[in-house]
This record gives sequence, C-alpha cells and structure tokens, in this order.
Amino acid sequence: MIPRYSRSEMTSIWSPEAKFRIWFEIEAHAADALAELGVIPKDAARTIWDKAKTVEFDVERIDEIERVTKHDVIAFLTHLAEIVGPEARFVHQGMTSSDVLDTCLAVQLARAADLLIGDIDKLLEALKRRAMEHKDTVTVGRSHGIHAEPVTFGLKLAEAYAEFARNRERLVAARKDIATCAISGAVGTFANIDPRVEEHVAQAMGLSVEPVSTQIIPRDRHAMFFATLGVIASSVERVAIEIRHLQRTEVLEAEEYFSPGQKGSSAMPHKRNPVLTENLTGLARMVRSYAFPAMENVALWHERDISHSSVERMIGPDATVTLDFALVRLTSVIDKLLVYPERMKGNMDRLGGLVHSQRILLALTQAGCSREDAYRLVQRNAMKVWDSYHVSGSATVDFLEELLADKDVRSYLSEEEIRERFDIAYHTKHVDTIFQRVFGEA
Amino acid sequence: MIPRYSRSEMTSIWSPEAKFRIWFEIEAHAADALAELGVIPKDAARTIWDKAKTVEFDVERIDEIERVTKHDVIAFLTHLAEIVGPEARFVHQGMTSSDVLDTCLAVQLARAADLLIGDIDKLLEALKRRAMEHKDTVTVGRSHGIHAEPVTFGLKLAEAYAEFARNRERLVAARKDIATCAISGAVGTFANIDPRVEEHVAQAMGLSVEPVSTQIIPRDRHAMFFATLGVIASSVERVAIEIRHLQRTEVLEAEEYFSPGQKGSSAMPHKRNPVLTENLTGLARMVRSYAFPAMENVALWHERDISHSSVERMIGPDATVTLDFALVRLTSVIDKLLVYPERMKGNMDRLGGLVHSQRILLALTQAGCSREDAYRLVQRNAMKVWDSYHVSGSATVDFLEELLADKDVRSYLSEEEIRERFDIAYHTKHVDTIFQRVFGEA
Amino acid sequence: MIPRYSRSEMTSIWSPEAKFRIWFEIEAHAADALAELGVIPKDAARTIWDKAKTVEFDVERIDEIERVTKHDVIAFLTHLAEIVGPEARFVHQGMTSSDVLDTCLAVQLARAADLLIGDIDKLLEALKRRAMEHKDTVTVGRSHGIHAEPVTFGLKLAEAYAEFARNRERLVAARKDIATCAISGAVGTFANIDPRVEEHVAQAMGLSVEPVSTQIIPRDRHAMFFATLGVIASSVERVAIEIRHLQRTEVLEAEEYFSPGQKGSSAMPHKRNPVLTENLTGLARMVRSYAFPAMENVALWHERDISHSSVERMIGPDATVTLDFALVRLTSVIDKLLVYPERMKGNMDRLGGLVHSQRILLALTQAGCSREDAYRLVQRNAMKVWDSYHVSGSATVDFLEELLADKDVRSYLSEEEIRERFDIAYHTKHVDTIFQRVFGEA
Amino acid sequence: MIPRYSRSEMTSIWSPEAKFRIWFEIEAHAADALAELGVIPKDAARTIWDKAKTVEFDVERIDEIERVTKHDVIAFLTHLAEIVGPEARFVHQGMTSSDVLDTCLAVQLARAADLLIGDIDKLLEALKRRAMEHKDTVTVGRSHGIHAEPVTFGLKLAEAYAEFARNRERLVAARKDIATCAISGAVGTFANIDPRVEEHVAQAMGLSVEPVSTQIIPRDRHAMFFATLGVIASSVERVAIEIRHLQRTEVLEAEEYFSPGQKGSSAMPHKRNPVLTENLTGLARMVRSYAFPAMENVALWHERDISHSSVERMIGPDATVTLDFALVRLTSVIDKLLVYPERMKGNMDRLGGLVHSQRILLALTQAGCSREDAYRLVQRNAMKVWDSYHVSGSATVDFLEELLADKDVRSYLSEEEIRERFDIAYHTKHVDTIFQRVFGEA
Repeated sequence: MIPRYSRSEMTSIWSPEAKFRIWFEIEAHAADALAELGVIPKDAARTIWDKAKTVEFDVERIDEIERVTKHDVIAFLTHLAEIVGPEARFVHQGMTSSDVLDTCLAVQLARAADLLIGDIDKLLEALKRRAMEHKDTVTVGRSHGIHAEPVTFGLKLAEAYAEFARNRERLVAARKDIATCAISGAVGTFANIDPRVEEHVAQAMGLSVEPVSTQIIPRDRHAMFFATLGVIASSVERVAIEIRHLQRTEVLEAEEYFSPGQKGSSAMPHKRNPVLTENLTGLARMVRSYAFPAMENVALWHERDISHSSVERMIGPDATVTLDFALVRLTSVIDKLLVYPERMKGNMDRLGGLVHSQRILLALTQAGCSREDAYRLVQRNAMKVWDSYHVSGSATVDFLEELLADKDVRSYLSEEEIRERFDIAYHTKHVDTIFQRVFGEA
Repeated sequence: MIPRYSRSEMTSIWSPEAKFRIWFEIEAHAADALAELGVIPKDAARTIWDKAKTVEFDVERIDEIERVTKHDVIAFLTHLAEIVGPEARFVHQGMTSSDVLDTCLAVQLARAADLLIGDIDKLLEALKRRAMEHKDTVTVGRSHGIHAEPVTFGLKLAEAYAEFARNRERLVAARKDIATCAISGAVGTFANIDPRVEEHVAQAMGLSVEPVSTQIIPRDRHAMFFATLGVIASSVERVAIEIRHLQRTEVLEAEEYFSPGQKGSSAMPHKRNPVLTENLTGLARMVRSYAFPAMENVALWHERDISHSSVERMIGPDATVTLDFALVRLTSVIDKLLVYPERMKGNMDRLGGLVHSQRILLALTQAGCSREDAYRLVQRNAMKVWDSYHVSGSATVDFLEELLADKDVRSYLSEEEIRERFDIAYHTKHVDTIFQRVFGEA
Repeated sequence: MIPRYSRSEMTSIWSPEAKFRIWFEIEAHAADALAELGVIPKDAARTIWDKAKTVEFDVERIDEIERVTKHDVIAFLTHLAEIVGPEARFVHQGMTSSDVLDTCLAVQLARAADLLIGDIDKLLEALKRRAMEHKDTVTVGRSHGIHAEPVTFGLKLAEAYAEFARNRERLVAARKDIATCAISGAVGTFANIDPRVEEHVAQAMGLSVEPVSTQIIPRDRHAMFFATLGVIASSVERVAIEIRHLQRTEVLEAEEYFSPGQKGSSAMPHKRNPVLTENLTGLARMVRSYAFPAMENVALWHERDISHSSVERMIGPDATVTLDFALVRLTSVIDKLLVYPERMKGNMDRLGGLVHSQRILLALTQAGCSREDAYRLVQRNAMKVWDSYHVSGSATVDFLEELLADKDVRSYLSEEEIRERFDIAYHTKHVDTIFQRVFGEA
Repeated sequence: MIPRYSRSEMTSIWSPEAKFRIWFEIEAHAADALAELGVIPKDAARTIWDKAKTVEFDVERIDEIERVTKHDVIAFLTHLAEIVGPEARFVHQGMTSSDVLDTCLAVQLARAADLLIGDIDKLLEALKRRAMEHKDTVTVGRSHGIHAEPVTFGLKLAEAYAEFARNRERLVAARKDIATCAISGAVGTFANIDPRVEEHVAQAMGLSVEPVSTQIIPRDRHAMFFATLGVIASSVERVAIEIRHLQRTEVLEAEEYFSPGQKGSSAMPHKRNPVLTENLTGLARMVRSYAFPAMENVALWHERDISHSSVERMIGPDATVTLDFALVRLTSVIDKLLVYPERMKGNMDRLGGLVHSQRILLALTQAGCSREDAYRLVQRNAMKVWDSYHVSGSATVDFLEELLADKDVRSYLSEEEIRERFDIAYHTKHVDTIFQRVFGEA
C-alpha cells in the first residue's frame, strides 16, 4: 500500500483512528450486554458511552502507552480509562484481546468489501453504458491474436460485464464469510463471558456470530476473502490486457482517454501509451500474490498462534487498498475510453474480406460442391488475398472480387449468393440475445 | 497426479475414455437440437445415438488419427465417423472445437466437484461422530503452543467440522460457477449455430447456459474453482498440523491409528510417526499452488489464446485427484484417530494447576484485594509451581496446595472459594451451546 | 507431467528403473567404503557389485514387496537380497532410508539439471545464429506497445541470448547447490556409520559432501533449485510473448514455422496461430508455480518431517520435465522462426516517418530554435501525419515531405540537415558494440 | 512495509531523499562522461556538481512539480534546474527516464543487498557462538516430531549456520545479478548517447554494465533477486519453527529471552509465548509471496511496458525491509535464546532409555542372536517401558534395568555390553567432524 495507488476512502478504514473507534464500539456494546446481564452496573455501561462516544482517541498517546506496555489492546484500554474514569474498570470483562482484534478486523474487512462492491457497481455501470453504446460496433474477433470472425465491441464489454457481475457475487459471498464476531474469551469457551454478549455485539456491529472460535476467528474465512480478491484482480488484468492490445500502434482500435490539451502537448503524437492499463496489470499481480500468505495463515497451531498477525497487518490494507484503487481506475478507463469504430472496420477490411472464407466454404459445400473441391476453390482465391496482405499489411486483392471472377466458384454460387456471405449482419444477428442474457435487456 | 496419491473414482473422470464419452454426448445432444430446429435430418441425430451410444471409443485409434491431423477434436470426429457412418457429417455443425472442449471440462470439473463434495460429507460425518464422542473430553487449550485454559477435544473437532461445513458451501458455489455450457461457435456469436442448441445441450448435460462466451468459457470461473480447492487444502493442512502436534512424543494426546499387529512389529514402540498427516501437509501445499496458474489463466488475449490449455491439462486432474485423495485420507485419519483422554488430563495437570491462575486472580480482586496485591499473591505461589515444572517437566509443587497454605490469600478467600476456582466444569459449561450452534444439536 | 509435454530423455531420469539403479549404486559404493574400513567383508562388497551390477531390477516385484512392507527402501533391499544372496545382509549397514532417498534425489536433480543446461546451450546456439542473421534487420522498437525508435531484430534475439546466458549461470549454481550426498544415519550424527563412507559415495556418485545433514539434506537447496527453474520459465514466457505479439495479424513481423504443405492446407490462410508459444506461456505458469511448495518445504520440523516427500514426488518430475520440454520447444521455435523484414520495415513506415520526430526536435533546438518553438513546429507537422495514420492505419501524409515544405522549419534546417535525421543508420550504429558485449563478437 | 516491522537502516534506502540523491549522482556522473566526450561543456558538468553536490533536494517541491508534469523524472530535473541554473540544460542529454530509474533501482537493491548480507553475517556470528557454546549439549533428535536418537543442540545451530552460509552465497550472487547500470536511451540502442557514458556511470556508481538493455534492465535479474529473498525467508521460517517447537509447554527446551523483570510481571508464569518467532513465521510468508509478482514481471511486452513499475514500487521496499527486520530479529532471538540443557536431557530420559533400543537390537544380532529373536527380545522389554510412558508421559519402567534383568538378553550380552550401548557419547563422537566441516574449526 503506497499513497500513489491509494484512495482515502479505503485507507481511512485502516487508519489507527478508525481502528480505535471500532475497538471502542466493540467494548462499549459488550459493556451494554454485560450490564443487561447484570455482570457490570448499568451506569457503568452508560458512562462509557457518554464519556467516549464522540471523543477522538489520541493515537499518539496510545502509541506512547504501548511503548511501555508492549500490548496494543492494553494501551488502548489504559487510554480509554483516562477518558472514561473509574468506570473503565468494567470494560473488557471476561474478554481477551483477540475478541477485540478479530472482531475489529471483521468490521474493517466488511467495510472494505462494501467499498469494493460499490466499486464494482460503478464499474458495471460504466461497462453497461459503453456496451450499449457499442452494441453494434463491429470489430474483428481474434483467437490467438489472429483475425477470426466478426464480433462487436459491445460484446467484448458485455463479457467484461458478466465477469464482473460474477465477481460481485463472489465478493458478496466473501464478505459474508468474513463478517463474523467472536467474543468468546481466552480459548473460545465462553468460560468468562456469556455467549449472549457475543450475540449482542455481533448484531450491534452488523456481523453474524462466529459459531465456534478458538481464541480467534478461523482463518479459512480470511483465506477465502483474499483468494476472492485475487480472482477479481485477475479479471481486472484481463480487461487491462485487452485495452493494451487495442491501443498498440498497429491495432489502435481504442485508446485510454487523453484530453485535447494532452493531445497537443507532445511532438510525438503516436506516443500515446496505455500506462493506466499497464499499471493495472502490475497492481493485479500484487493483489493476486496476497492470496498466498492468506492461505498459509489457515493452519495455525492449536487454539492459535500469532503468525497470521503480521501477514494481516500487511495484506489487510495492501490488498483492499490496491484493489479499490485498481477498480476505480479501471472504471475511469472504461468510462472515458476512446473507441475508434472506423479503425475496427479498417483493420478487419485490411485482410480483404478473408474473414468470410469460412462462410464461402460452407456455401460451396451446401451448393453441392465436394468438400475437397470447395477447399481448393476457396483456397486459391484466399491465398491471392493473403499474399497481397502479407507483402504490405493491407490486402490489395479483394476476396469478394476474386470469388466473383472465379468461374468455377460461380458455377456453384450466383453473385448474390456470394455477396450475401459477406454480410456482417450474419455475425451479429444474436447480439441482442446475448445482451438480453447479460443485461436482461438489449 | 501420481498413482500413489490417486483414487480411481477421481482419475476415471479424467481418463481419455471418460472424456471421449462426454464429447460424444455433447455432440449427440447438439445433433438432437439441430434436428429439432430442422438444421439436420432427424434421422441423422437418431443414427448418431443408435450407433455410438453404447460403443466404447477406441482411444488408441483416436490417438493414431491425431498424430496425423494434429487436432484432437477432429481426430475424435473422424473416429466417430468410422462408427456412425455417413450421418456423421451432420455432427458438429456450426460448432467450434472449444464448444466441445470447454463444455466437457465443465462436466469433468462438475463431476470432480460432486466427488469432492461427497468426500467432505464423509469427512463431516467422521468429524461429527468423533466430536460427539469427545464433547466432554477435557484437554488444555494452547495459544502460541503454550498451555492456556481448558477446552475439550470435541470442541477442536467441532471447529474442524464448522470449517469444512464452510468449505462445502464454498465448493458448492464453485461448482455452480464452473458448470456452464458454451455452444456458441468460433467467437461466441452464434453466427453458425442457434443459441437454442446451447440451451438444449446445457440442460441435457446438467449445466447452465454460459450467458456470454468468446470462443471459450471465461476463465475467471476456473480461477475461482481452483482457488476454492486451495482454501480447502489449507483447511486439510490445519487439521493435519493439529494431529501432528498432538502425536509428538512429549504431547502424545492422540495418534494416527495403527493396528495391534503394527503395534507389535517394531522394536522401537515410541517411533509411531504421524506420516499420514505429514503427507497431507505436503499434498495441501500442492493443491494450494495450483490456484496461481489458474488465476494467471484469466487474462487471455482477445477472444481467446490457448495458453490456458496446457495449464488445465495438468491442474485439472492434479488438483482434483490430489484433493480427493487428501480428503479421503483425512477422513480415515479422523475416523480411526486414537485419542488419549488420560494423557490430555495428564499434560494439563503437569503444570500443577497453573491453568487456574487467572481465575484465582479474578477471585481475589472480586474479594476486594487490590489488583497489585492480587497479582503479587498469585504470582508468588505460581512461581513456585512453575519453577518446579521448569526443572523436571512435571510440577512437584501443587498450586492449589500452595494457595490454601498462603494465609494472605486465605484472608480473602475461603478453602471452598479457592477450590471452586479449580473446577474444570467452569470452562466447559458452554460446550453444549457451541455444539448446538455447530451441529444443531448437542 | 503429462506425456503430451514430456521428452523421454527427462522422464527416463524419473523412471522407477533409473531410481532403483541409483539406489543400487549408492548402496554398492557404500558397501565398498564399509569394506575398505573393515566394517563388512571385502568379498561381500565385491559380490554385491558382481551379482547386481548389470541386472535390471524388477519394478513390479519391488512394488509387490512394498505392498507388504509399506516401505519402499526395504522393499528394494529385499529384492536386492533375492538377487545378491546372503551377502545382501551387509548392504545398508548403519544407513537410514533417507540416506538413499535424498542422495538419489540429488543425483536425479543433478542429471535433470545437466539435461536442462544442455537444453539452454542449444537454445543459446539457436538464438545466436538467428541474432547474427538478423543483426541488421531493422524493426521498430516498441515501448508500451507503441512505436518508439528503430532497433534491429538481431538485438531482440541478443537480449534473449543474454538472458538465457544468465539463466544458464543460475542453473549451474542451482545444480551445484542441489548435488550433495548425505550418508549420515538416523539423525545425521554418523553414530552408526563412518563419515568416510559418505565421502566415498559422494565422490563415486559425482556429488559433494553435505557438510551437515539432519536425517535429510536441508530443503533450502531444493527450494533454490525450483525457484531457479521458475525464473528460467519466466524467461521462456518472455520470448514466447514477444513472438505471439509479432505474429498477431496486424503486426505479422514473424511467425512460428509452418511447412509449405501446412501453408496450403487451409482455406483460411490468415489463421496461422502461434500455438507453440501460447503453449509455452502456459507451461511457464506451471513451472513457476512449483517454486512455492518447494519454498514451503524448507521449514520441516526438527530433524525432519516427511511433508516434503509428496511435494517432491510431484514437482521433481513435473518441473524438470515441463521445463525441459519448454526449452526444447522454444529452441525449435527460434530455430525455424519465419522472419519478415519487409513487414518490419513496412510497419515502421506506416507511421509516415514519425519515429524520427524526436531527432528533428533536437536538430531544431541545436540549430538555435527555442524549445517551445521547436515543439510547435514539430508538432504541427507530426499531427498531420498522425491524423492521416489514425484514419486508415497507414499514414497518407509523409513527415519528411511536410517538414521540407514547412518554411519555418526550413529557416533553421536545410533539406540535407532534415534528410539526415531520417537516417536509420543513426539508430543502429552501436549494434556491433552490443553484440560484442553479448557474444564476444559482432 | 509497515513501521512496526521496519528498520530505518533499510527504509532510508527507499526514502525519496535517497532516491533523488542517487538520481542526481547518475545524472552528474553522466554529465562528466558527456563532458569528457565533448558532448557538453566541461564547465557545465563541473557546475552541476558544484551547485547540487551537497544540496538537500526538496521532496515537497518535486512532488509539487510532478503534480503538474505528471512525470517524476521531469519533475526532478526541473527542480534540479532551479538549483543548478542554466547549465541544467546539459543534464540528461540523450538519456531516457528509465536510464535513471532502473540504474537507481539497481543501486537501491545493491545497497539493500549489502545490508542484508551484513544482517546474515551477524546472524552467522550469533549462530556460531551459540553452536560452539552448545556443541556438546545433548538433546534428542526428532524425526516426525517423535524421539529418534540423540544429537546436540550445537548441531542444530550448526545446521542453521550452514544454511545461512549458503543463503549468504546466494544473496551475493543475486546482488551481482541485480547491480547493473543501463544508460542506453529510448530503446537501448545508444542512438543518442555514447556507450562510454554508461561505462563511466556504472563504474562511478559501483555497478557493472548491462550488456544489452531494451529501454530497461531485463527483469529476470529482479525475479532472481526476489526469489532468492524468498528462499532466505523460508530459512528464517525454519529456524523460527524450530524454536516455537522447543518452547511449547510440553517440550520447553529453549525459550525466547525474557528479562528477569518480564519474568516477574505475570501471574501466569507459564504463559511465555514465542511471539517473536511466530512473528518471523508470518514475515517469512510475506517475503516469500513477493517472489511471485517479481517472476510475472519478467515477460514485459516488446522493448518494455510499465506493468513492472507498480509491482516494484511495492515489493522493492516491502521485501527488503521485511527481510532485514526478520534477520535482525532472528539474530537477536538466537543471541539471547534461553537454552535448558537439563530439560533436554529430561525430555530424552522421560522415555526411559528407549532411544537406545536400536543399538541393543544391533548388539544382539552382532552377538549371534537371529534377527527375529533379537526383535522379540528388544520389543518385549521396550513395550513395558513404552506402556509406562504412555500412561503418564514419563516412563516408570527403565529400559536398561529391564534388559539387565532379562535372562534371554543376558545370554547374549553381558551387563557391561548392555550398559555401553546406553552411552550417549556414541552418538556425539562425530560432532567435531561436522563442526570442522561447517565452521572450519571444532
């Protein structure tokens, strides 16, 4: 997590101030429940809220205390006592530090997930808008980087939309997985604290109850969460790579946005680099990598060891901040992407109509031509076109013209029959069907 | 995937025979739909089924053809034509190889997932049975490998149960994610094939329809699937590590099963090695590692490149076969695990009652003793016990005796008050609550 | 490791036959040393060699015994006794199974490394030959996928050569790291075996002595080995990605080889897919992924646990076989790569000379033009060229012509001065220097 | 990288101040070479040094400029011009930003490597000192966590020493790999800059010349560097895990240091948690994970894309700072480790002498007893001991006594012959040999 790739909306979730605020809320809600159960005086619980509810905790002061106590939760409780006064002795009764730390992490990850879900929603919105805009913008589909058959640019965006819609669903599941509350004491047995305290805090903090904890919340939950972020990051990379390809000089079917001002700023107008999507590619690598230590964190020893802690202090912020930044950046890239339909058509046409060779082949066989003859006929015309393309990168021989002029071909197919095989609409006739599936509208 | 760590139930899903059978079914169901739509003769569709439904495809023959055609699907179709006869020309119309390959992979992964879900069910069963059996078997809870407070062995198993119940849910979601059918042609536009064919094949093969494919099914689905297996493997590792710890010589609270015959077979009876769970630890590392190439597979170029293929040819079988083997092995380990309640009690008692020090501290403060004095009183008695433990690994001084004999302590607490703080039942009183949460019964 | 991506040269290293042969040699050499030290009779050592030196061990028989003994080394020794007779009782004296297993693994990995080093040598040879061939083949250098300034195709290959020369050096170091012999007994103390046995076996097997082993050879060695393979695989991926880019339809500056026969075989001559390099991309992902379980294998418990074993049974063959296959495939791709210098020039020229804009800018400022004015002058001409490129993918306005016709430009630079800035030789003048650095010749 | 796990020695290498200082030095040395070659005035080069050599660059000012220029190197150069004056126009001539950025990264990584090598040296020193101290401290060797045969604690440390000595060698190689200088211009052709400038800067900055760069230094070098850090981190984990095992309550053969003050601070004297080594375990996971994106950075597109940049901005500091912190922490742990030889002996003895069963078995067979009988004799005595151990965790039956009292055993072995098989010295007789190998002294 570095400022360059961070948004304050996400970093603020991980700030010491936010953390101490959550700690306070957990402790104060627990006090409410303890008071309700008669374990501590009701006045005490009320005082805790009254004295500290709107107070800004003094991070430096807490750090100062921690340097002495070597324990973050104790440092916080000491500072809280400075604010609350004698009633502070009723705080944290029967609880263990991990009750606070793990429940706090759950809150932070849930909030981070909410932000990320919001990010995806905005990305979906942008993808849908641009998909609708380019539903009928024909471009060549490429397998293996080689021209195959026509698609539309809207379809590409619809694919991304469907992928991120799946990612949204996965993230919602991962959020649910992570958002649990454990207030169960030293080894998770509730020996010193009533399970009803946990239930109350869970509800108050918007979490579900962890059915069985040890000292801590089990780490398979976190592993699943970070693995899910890794998958989402991989989808970010996919869209980024697509745009990088489309922007390369020889293709130039789309470009990351540059303002007219920017446009005029350079003596090298061709040097418009897809630096945002290249950056996203790198960020995706990072988010993906964090899934690995998260999975290694699962197998802690017995009721807990603390090896997960240093990992989470790093990847908690690093993974969520980086993915948040990446999703917002990707949304902006999609939103403002410069799309060049003419170049899409131009690139496809540069092959002189060869994308239709398959259809001609089919037409010939359907017209009674043997498979072997059909191949030969298509091939002899296709090769002329291809050879001319190979020389110059732009076919000077036209496939349609050649076919029309080939009397063997014409013995099977009329001019009209040939021409209709060059109809792009053949390829796009089901775009509406697909849009209907993806967006529920077309 | 190596025979040593494979079960035929899973490897058979990945056999060439199984694959060609699925390919046939996809093609034959597609032919049905094409016939229904009037694209091919109904007789042709029927003949395809009639001639090949019960035939065993000749894998060697197909391989032989592939060596010539350099194309696996064409090789299969050629062999199919040898079986079906002239009607074979109606097979595969308007389809692309990936339609067959990707839909087949979906079927294989779905079947693999079903097997894995069944594995988890059996594991859950074993965990539940042993958890119930040891619901009240007291053992010391350990944080950081150090004695903390009492738990029960049943609780440990309940934790594992809850974790694998979550894993089951994740796997069900991952299965749903992966189980889609794409019959959409060269670049996913349905240019040459009606979307209704896809719908028919999907239903017939027990899959859902892929809303939008390119040439292929998008690989975020597969990434999520293999990431989920990685998380499950990490949970396997967690249980394995727990057992390895419990079996180490100094702890010896549980052991992997050895038959009475085995028991007598060695001149070194102490050398009972937890080799099964060590093996599971290694297998977990492997399954986890496969998640990463799966995530790297997401960002294919444009409408597809084929870089994912070699990865999936490896990790498809490797990850599912290895995890299947691991789950079955773990179930067997749990099922037959030798549990030594006496040693659990013995280990806890070796510390001379120190696990109760926290409770005494609390009792003193509740009895009006200042926090500082309480600490001092507990500490001076605890240290004597600990020192005796430190010397010999088994306390020769008893904490309870010391406390009872300490008149400063006694000035706050009666003998009965002290004794009741040594009651183990205090720690286990909520075990039923937890079992109720985890199993819905206690 | 699957047959499709395997070469027998490498798989044979990992065959049971090869393994048992190495086991035998370790045991027989150890017997020699034991005999020399007077621990066992010299006749016994001689008999072991005489009876089994040229025997083919019966893998099925050994497997059969293992099914009973549940121990692979004992099964082998039992079978060896069947061959050698009573003298077999002198085999393995004072040794532990891991002495055999780990030393054998060292031999296998060293042999695998030798094969891989040979693979790299052949790849280097191919890269050098093609680099020399295309030392002066001008092509455009691209940063961010966008045209930058001219380079030569030979330079690209020289970069790959230098990278693989580094990889060779790394692999030699990794081989040295892995090639150690441990014959040190149950916990590495030589309690039951003289260290001189280890020294003898090490020398006889072409290994160095492991200075200190536990029961096993420390796994940091293996981690380093597999990490090195991961780096080499990443370099394979780099070259593969370069070729995939060069082969894409719009670029088409190079292509994987296809025979003239192949050329004529298709009705879609443009569908020449870079499937070999796509395949290499996927294989690289796999080899890379194996580094992680290898690193996780380092932290075994105490003097050893056996969790590394299942990992190594998989990644030992998988990583070496896959990388071997990849290197050989890459060598073949490089060797036969179709290179299209005309298309390289054509693609560069399609931008109408804009690659020279930087030089003109510099020339203007050197001629006394202010930086701001120089920018303005270059830009107004460059934009015309670019706009024409943007429309059609091939500039119809020529940068040189525009500059020559711009009287403000001409007030600073003569025609000759302008023309000489369009000289490609300016960019290639140091190619010999670089080749000298890389190849020691130019 | 978070403050909690950072040392200023390492973070300062990555500070903006340090970075700009290195940038300045690269530019100023390049100016010297350019002046020497007559490309720029010698006065200019001198002025650059004179005006800026001792200046502290104003990071905030540079950031301010970057917010306008959106380019970090240009922002720096602009600020440099504010300091140097008009001669600043001679700075950076013919260079590209990456020349500065990549050479700077090389300097930073080399410095980081130097610090890490120094860290390892201190760790080696501590390991050697403690190894010598405990060369003869007998403890039980454990395979699979189960008692095997005696070793010494010094041997364990010698193993760690040998492992980190290897890691040092690997790091030296990785440092060499990374420490190269590239001043080769826009696409690495030296079109606008003489290769002698690169040579001069390389020498002045303590780097070697990059034989062939594109726009950038090839990323296989960085991949190897970070993979090496990952292996070293795995070794850190290994030692950490060993200590965590030794500190667990039932073993307690060693403990992380706690001051006498700390000792008295708790009412739970047994709760001495190995939090430092648990922390190291987590940090190792992080450092290891960074190797993955570093490997993915290798396959950049053509002459470069900028996807590696965001990765390196993160892992450059994160990996080196975290590993530095971990090595220093580990050194401190080793340096002050509390070692309990009595407990080592005590744990071994708790098995009542069973660790010697193997030797007795051998003695019996050597005395003419058949293998089967020897097994039976050893076993019937061993089982009595083991059973007594199993009950209480401390054998109440003594193996030696039993053997002496077994008249069948005695028919083969005299009391003295039996007693001498219980001699620990048998197991430690080669410790000096091993120490000689590892330390060159014993």
